[in-house]
Amino acid sequence: MNQDYIKAHEWSIIEEGFDPKRVKSSESLFSIGNGAMGQRANFEELYSGPSFQGSYIAGVYYPDKTRVGWWKNGYPEYFAKVINAPSWIGINVEVNGESLDLYTCKSVSDFKRELNMKEGWLSRSFTATLQNEVMVHVEAKRFLSLDSDELGAIAYTIKPLNTAAIIVLQPYLDSGITNEDSNWDDKFWDTTDVSQENHQAFIEAKTMKTNFHTCTFMTSQLFVNERQLVIEPEQKANATYASFSYRHQVKQNESFTIHKFGGYVVDRNHKKSDLLKVAKDLLKKALNIGFEQLLEDQKEVWAKIWSMSDISISGDVKAQQGIRFNIFQLNQTYLGRDAKLNIGPKGFTGEKYGGSTYWDTEAYCIPFYMATKDQKVARTLLEYRYYHLEKAIENAEKLGFSNGAALYPMVTMNGEECHNEWEITFEEIHRNGAIAYAIYNYERFTGDYSYIPEKGLEVLIGIARFWQQRASFSTDKNKYVILGVTGPNEYENNVNNNWYTNYIAQWCINFTIENIEKIKSDHPEDYSRIYNKTSLSEDEITQWKNVAEGMYFPYSEKHQVFLQQDGFLDKDLITVDQLDTSQRPINQKWSWDRILRSPYIKQADTLQGFYFFEDHFSEEILERHFDFYEPFTVHESSLSPCVHGIQAAKLNRMEQAYTFYLRTSRLDLDDYNHEVHEGLHITSMAGTWMSIVEGFGGMRIRNNTLSFTPRIPKEWDAYSFKINFRNQTIKVTVNQDTTCFEQDGSKDLDILVNNKSVTLTPENKVSLSCV
Amino acid sequence: MNQDYIKAHEWSIIEEGFDPKRVKSSESLFSIGNGAMGQRANFEELYSGPSFQGSYIAGVYYPDKTRVGWWKNGYPEYFAKVINAPSWIGINVEVNGESLDLYTCKSVSDFKRELNMKEGWLSRSFTATLQNEVMVHVEAKRFLSLDSDELGAIAYTIKPLNTAAIIVLQPYLDSGITNEDSNWDDKFWDTTDVSQENHQAFIEAKTMKTNFHTCTFMTSQLFVNERQLVIEPEQKANATYASFSYRHQVKQNESFTIHKFGGYVVDRNHKKSDLLKVAKDLLKKALNIGFEQLLEDQKEVWAKIWSMSDISISGDVKAQQGIRFNIFQLNQTYLGRDAKLNIGPKGFTGEKYGGSTYWDTEAYCIPFYMATKDQKVARTLLEYRYYHLEKAIENAEKLGFSNGAALYPMVTMNGEECHNEWEITFEEIHRNGAIAYAIYNYERFTGDYSYIPEKGLEVLIGIARFWQQRASFSTDKNKYVILGVTGPNEYENNVNNNWYTNYIAQWCINFTIENIEKIKSDHPEDYSRIYNKTSLSEDEITQWKNVAEGMYFPYSEKHQVFLQQDGFLDKDLITVDQLDTSQRPINQKWSWDRILRSPYIKQADTLQGFYFFEDHFSEEILERHFDFYEPFTVHESSLSPCVHGIQAAKLNRMEQAYTFYLRTSRLDLDDYNHEVHEGLHITSMAGTWMSIVEGFGGMRIRNNTLSFTPRIPKEWDAYSFKINFRNQTIKVTVNQDTTCFEQDGSKDLDILVNNKSVTLTPENKVSLSCV
Repeated sequence: MNQDYIKAHEWSIIEEGFDPKRVKSSESLFSIGNGAMGQRANFEELYSGPSFQGSYIAGVYYPDKTRVGWWKNGYPEYFAKVINAPSWIGINVEVNGESLDLYTCKSVSDFKRELNMKEGWLSRSFTATLQNEVMVHVEAKRFLSLDSDELGAIAYTIKPLNTAAIIVLQPYLDSGITNEDSNWDDKFWDTTDVSQENHQAFIEAKTMKTNFHTCTFMTSQLFVNERQLVIEPEQKANATYASFSYRHQVKQNESFTIHKFGGYVVDRNHKKSDLLKVAKDLLKKALNIGFEQLLEDQKEVWAKIWSMSDISISGDVKAQQGIRFNIFQLNQTYLGRDAKLNIGPKGFTGEKYGGSTYWDTEAYCIPFYMATKDQKVARTLLEYRYYHLEKAIENAEKLGFSNGAALYPMVTMNGEECHNEWEITFEEIHRNGAIAYAIYNYERFTGDYSYIPEKGLEVLIGIARFWQQRASFSTDKNKYVILGVTGPNEYENNVNNNWYTNYIAQWCINFTIENIEKIKSDHPEDYSRIYNKTSLSEDEITQWKNVAEGMYFPYSEKHQVFLQQDGFLDKDLITVDQLDTSQRPINQKWSWDRILRSPYIKQADTLQGFYFFEDHFSEEILERHFDFYEPFTVHESSLSPCVHGIQAAKLNRMEQAYTFYLRTSRLDLDDYNHEVHEGLHITSMAGTWMSIVEGFGGMRIRNNTLSFTPRIPKEWDAYSFKINFRNQTIKVTVNQDTTCFEQDGSKDLDILVNNKSVTLTPENKVSLSCV
Repeated sequence: MNQDYIKAHEWSIIEEGFDPKRVKSSESLFSIGNGAMGQRANFEELYSGPSFQGSYIAGVYYPDKTRVGWWKNGYPEYFAKVINAPSWIGINVEVNGESLDLYTCKSVSDFKRELNMKEGWLSRSFTATLQNEVMVHVEAKRFLSLDSDELGAIAYTIKPLNTAAIIVLQPYLDSGITNEDSNWDDKFWDTTDVSQENHQAFIEAKTMKTNFHTCTFMTSQLFVNERQLVIEPEQKANATYASFSYRHQVKQNESFTIHKFGGYVVDRNHKKSDLLKVAKDLLKKALNIGFEQLLEDQKEVWAKIWSMSDISISGDVKAQQGIRFNIFQLNQTYLGRDAKLNIGPKGFTGEKYGGSTYWDTEAYCIPFYMATKDQKVARTLLEYRYYHLEKAIENAEKLGFSNGAALYPMVTMNGEECHNEWEITFEEIHRNGAIAYAIYNYERFTGDYSYIPEKGLEVLIGIARFWQQRASFSTDKNKYVILGVTGPNEYENNVNNNWYTNYIAQWCINFTIENIEKIKSDHPEDYSRIYNKTSLSEDEITQWKNVAEGMYFPYSEKHQVFLQQDGFLDKDLITVDQLDTSQRPINQKWSWDRILRSPYIKQADTLQGFYFFEDHFSEEILERHFDFYEPFTVHESSLSPCVHGIQAAKLNRMEQAYTFYLRTSRLDLDDYNHEVHEGLHITSMAGTWMSIVEGFGGMRIRNNTLSFTPRIPKEWDAYSFKINFRNQTIKVTVNQDTTCFEQDGSKDLDILVNNKSVTLTPENKVSLSCV
C-alpha cells in the first residue's frame, strides 16, 4: 500500500484536507464517466499547481505516429491515443479581482471531496482565504448524465464568509487542449468554429487525421441564495476558447451559484451538419429539466445499476468500498450501448496505454458484464471482434500469414493494430486465444449457442488457421512448437513454447473443430454459408488436427510442472520473498534486461491457463503449479492478483485469497503500483469482481449447471452478490456459517452447491450450512 | 547484384551517362573524405531532382532524442546522429539568366563521373543544353586535402559551346542544413554569424545541445581560359547563407573557371575564439598554394598510402576495382591521426546507424589498420576504448552491475551508449568480447605487449567482471548460463546461451586471468598500480574462474555441432537455397517476427567464433560447422560474407570463397543489399581486405610467427599485398603457381608458408611453388 488518505466508507470515496501532492492521484480516483464520455476530477476553477487535465470522448482517438527506433516490416502505422478532448467543465472564479486558485491562495480549510458511487456524482467543498483576505466557502457538485449521455451538469456555489465581495463566475469552453503523451508534439485538434449566443457557447472542432467532428457546448443559470438571477455577461472568445463572465456584488454569507450544463456531441452519433442543432436541443432540454431533476434522474439510473451489480460486504468497510469502487468504475466506462465501443484499460481516467481494446476485455471483463447485465451486452462485446475479423485477417497478412488466418490486434480502436513494440504486437499472440475463449465462455454461461453459427465460428476459423500456420514442426522434438512469443507474462519476450500460448492454441483448434462438427449437423444452412465464405476444406482441418495433436508442452519431470516456457529452469530461481523490498516494483527499479532474465512473473501466465481450463486439471496439479509459480510472481500487472486470488480461494487458502482480494480491489485506492496519478486500472476491476464471485463464491458452470463452492474470508461477516444466469437473477449471500440462495425467475433452477444438486424455486430463499 | 552501371576500371570508379534514378546511389559511391571531414558526391550546381545531401565533420554529432515506444529503465538518453554539416561545395550557375540544373535542362550528354582512387579526387563532366538553347560543357574536379585536412578545393569550368553567354558563377555557403534521419524534426544547427569580406565568406554555427562550434568558410579565384580575372562580385547573405555572384560575358568556346576553396574548422581542434582567424589563415594558404599544387600534394599523399596498403590483382578488373574501392574508402574515413575519432559504419557517406563506433572496429577494422599503417594507429584505436572505460562502467551500473564491471556501448560517440533498442543495447553484449579480442589480436600481431600492462589490463578486468556477473548458474544444467542475449546474428533476439557469446565470455575471463598472472610476475609495478586502482581480489578471480570453467555450450549430439543458441534445432530448418528469390532479402520482405523465428542467420555468429578462435578447433570441426550454418546464412549484414569467405578459402573451397569475395568487395558497387543510396558500408570494407590477406593469402600469426597458406582464385592471374609486420614490410605476391615474398626490413624474418619455415632476408625475393 502506498497511500491511505482515502476515507473508508461503504458507498463513497472521500478525501479530506487539501494537499497539492495528492491532486493528480485524486484526479484519477474521483474520475466520473457515463460510458460515452468521462473526465478526471480536475477542478472547475483555475488551479495553477501540478495537475493532469483530462476529458475524454468514447471512440474518439488520434492515430499518433508510432515511435520506434528502427522501423521493421509489419510495424503498425500508428499508435492510437485516447485523445484529451476540449474541456467544458471550467468555471474561473474572481473575488474582488483576484482569481480563486487553491494553489496560490493564503489558506485552504475544510477541503473535502466525495465521489458518491451510489448516486453517481462528485462533490467538492472547501473554505479558502485569498491573498486579498476574502474568505469564501465553495460547494461544487457535478455528474455526467447516464440518461442523456452527451450531457453533464455542475452546480457551483461560492459564499463570501467575512465580507461582501464582487464575484465573477466565468464558465468557459476550451479546445486548446493537448495530450501529455503526444509522441511528436502534434496538434490533435483543429477548431473550426467558436460561437456564442444567449448565454450559450459552442466550440466545433475536429480531430486531426481521424476527422471526428465534435461540438462542445455549455450554458449556465445563475442564482443568488437559490433565487435565479439574470446577469448580462461579458463575452470573450478566441480561436479555441469561449467564456461568459457573470459579475455580481455578493453580500457576506450570501450564496452565489452557477448551474453549468455542458457536454459533447460527435459525428459518431449524429450527422456532421446537425451537431450544432443537436447541441442546442440538448442545452434547451437541460435548462428545462434543471440541475436538481437531472440529478434525481441520475440517482434513479444508478439505483437500477446497483440493484443488479452490487456486491455487499458486511464487517469490512475497506473491502466493501474496494469492490463498489471497482463496480462503479466499470459501469462508468462501458454500458454496452454502443457496439463500436469497448473497455479501455484506463477508461476515461487517463491517457496511458492508448487504444481501447486489449485482451483484457475477453479475459477479464466479459464475465462481469455477462453476469450483471442483460446477456446481449456480452454478445455485443463478442460482436465487436466479429466486425473486426477482416482487419484481423489483414493484420495477419501483413505478418506473412495467408488463407484467412486472423491475428487480432494487441491494441486497437477500430480493428487495426495500433501498438508499436514488436515484442508485444508481433509476439503476444495469445490474445487470439482469449478471443476464442470468450466465445466459449459466453455460450457456456448464457446457453446462447446461436452466436456461434451466426458469427462466432467465422472468428474461430480465422483463429484456428492462424495457430496452425504459426506453429512449426520441430524435427528435433518431433512435435509442433510455437517459437518467438511473448506470453501473458510480459517480463519475458521472444520465448519459445510458452505453455499458456501452446495450450490455448491447441484448445482453440479443438474447440473450432468441435463447433464445425456441431454446426455441420445442427445448423446446416449456417454451415454451408460459412463453408463457402471461408473456403474451408477437410484437408485444412486435418492440418489443424495434426498441429493440435502434436503440440509440444514444456514440462519438468523434476518439479512435475509445466514450464512457463522453454528454458525457464535455467533462471536463477530466487523467490520474490528473498528480494529486498527496495528492489520492488522491479519494473521501476531494474533495467529491462535484468527483468527479462530474472524468473519474476509480471502476471499469471501458466496459472492463467489453469484458470481458463481449470476442468482439465486436478486440484492437486493446480496446487503444485500454484506453489511453483506464485513465489516468482510479482503481480506488477493489475491483471494478476485476481487470478491468483481465485486459485488461492479454490485451494482454500483464504488468508492468501483475502490478501489478493484487497490488492486487486484497492489497487488504485491504495496505489499499490505507484502510478494511480496516471489513471485507474479499469479492466482489472472486472477481475476484482471475479475474485469475489468466482473466488470466494466459487461460481462456475459445470456440465451446463450453475455451481458454487462458497467460502468467506474470516474478516467478513457476510457478502452477497447477484448473477443474471440465463435471464434468471440469483442472489447469493454468504455468511460465516450459511449460504443463502434466492432467485426471482419464473421457473425452478437446479444448481450445484459444493457439488451437490440444489433446486432453487422462484422467490423461495434456500439456506444451506455449507461454507 | 542489383546494379551494374559502374565501369570496370583498375584505379577509378566511373559512371557514364546521366540517369536521375542513379543520382543518390552515385552520391554514395563517389563520396570523398579525408579522415577529418567528408561529403557525398552532391553536385556543385543546383540540382532539383531527388538527391541526398550530405557533408560531415568527424567527431561532430547531435544527441537526438531517442525514439522508443515505451520507455524502460536503463534506456540511453539519446541516439547520436552523424550530423549533416553546413555545405561549402555549392556553386550555382546561371547562363543567360537560367539556372543550370541537370534535372530540368533540355538535354544532358557526355555525362561522366570519375572517382580517381589513385590520386584522391572526384571529377564530373557533361554537356547540357538549357531550356534557353545555350549548350554548355562543364568540367568539375574536387578533393578534400589529406595534407591540410580542414581544407577542400574545387575547380569548376563552364564553356558555352554554341553561343556567347552571360554566365554567373555563384559560390555559396549554407548552414540551413537538416538531417534526413532527425527523430523529432529538431533543428541541429544554430548559426551564430554570417560574414563576408574580400571574396571570402564565413558561417559560424554551433550544434545544438553538443555545442560544437564550427566555422565553415570559402573563397574563390576566377579564370577565363586559364587567365586569372578579378571580378567584383555581388554579395548576398541571410541568417544561414552567404554567396558571391561572379558575372562574366563568356565567349563561345571560352572557358570560365572558378577555383573554390572551402572547409571547416572546429573547436574540437582549435580554441573557439580562434576559429575565424584559423579559417582565414587556411584560405590564405590555399590561395597561395593554388588548386593545381594542392592537387599535386594530394596525389603525393595518396601515393604514399597506396605504396603500403594497395592490393593489386591481375586478370580480374572488377575484383581489382572492388578491393581498391574498399581500401580507398577506409583511408578516406580514418587515418588514425585523432585519438578521439573512430570508424563509423557509414563513414562520411550517409546518416544511417548514427554513432561512430561499433564492435565493427575491433572485430573487422583493426587488422586492416594494424597491417597497413604504423602500428601506433591500431594502438590508438585500442586506447579509444581505454579512455571510455569509466563510461563503460557507468553504463553497466545503469543496468544493475557493480564493482567496476564494464559494458562497452553498442554504439557510441563519446563512450556513452547512444543506440535505443533494448534488444541491441542491453543484449548484444558480445561487443565486450570483441574489445578484449582486439587487445589480444594487437599484441599477437604487433608483439607490442606494453599496451596490456599500461592500459589494456584495466579494460580486461572490467570486461571479466561483467561476464562473471552477467552469467548465472542454472541448477537445472549445473552449469553457468548467459540468458537473454542477442548474438552477432541480429535475426535472433533475447536468446539463451548464444554459443558465440558464451564462448567469448569464457575466453575473456581466461585471457584476463592469464594476463594478470603475467603482469604480476613480469610487470610488478603495473600490477600493483592496477591491483589498487581496480580493488582486485583473489576471491574475485576465483569467482571468474568458476564461471569460465563451468560455462555451458549448447551442442547437438546428432549434428555434432555447437548450436548457435538454445533451441536452434526447434526451428523449421529450410535452407536458404530453398527460399524463393522473391523473398530475399528477408529483412525487406518479411515481418520481424517471421525473421526471428526463422533459422536464417543475418551474419556469421557461431562461425564468427570459429574465425576468432580458429586455433581452438580442428579443420574437420570447422568444416562441419561451416556446412551446418552456411546454408542458413543470408548475409544480410555487410559484415558476414568476409568471415565465410575466409573460412571457405581455408577449407580450399575456392569457388565459394571467390563468390564471397566479390560479394564483400563489390557490396556497394553492385548494391547487393538494395541500399547503397543510404551510404557505403565502410567498416565491412576492412573485412574485404581480410578476405584477401587472411582468406586467399591465409595470413595468420602462429606461435608468434607470421604464417601464410597462399591460395588464388582461378579467375585471377596474380595478386599481391603488403604487410607491416612488427615494423618490417613484407610483400606477398601470389601467382597461379608460385608465391613470392619480399621484405624491406633490416633483419631476417622467419615466416611459415604452408606450415614450413622460410627465412626472408632483406631485399631478397623468395619464390616458392606453394599455392
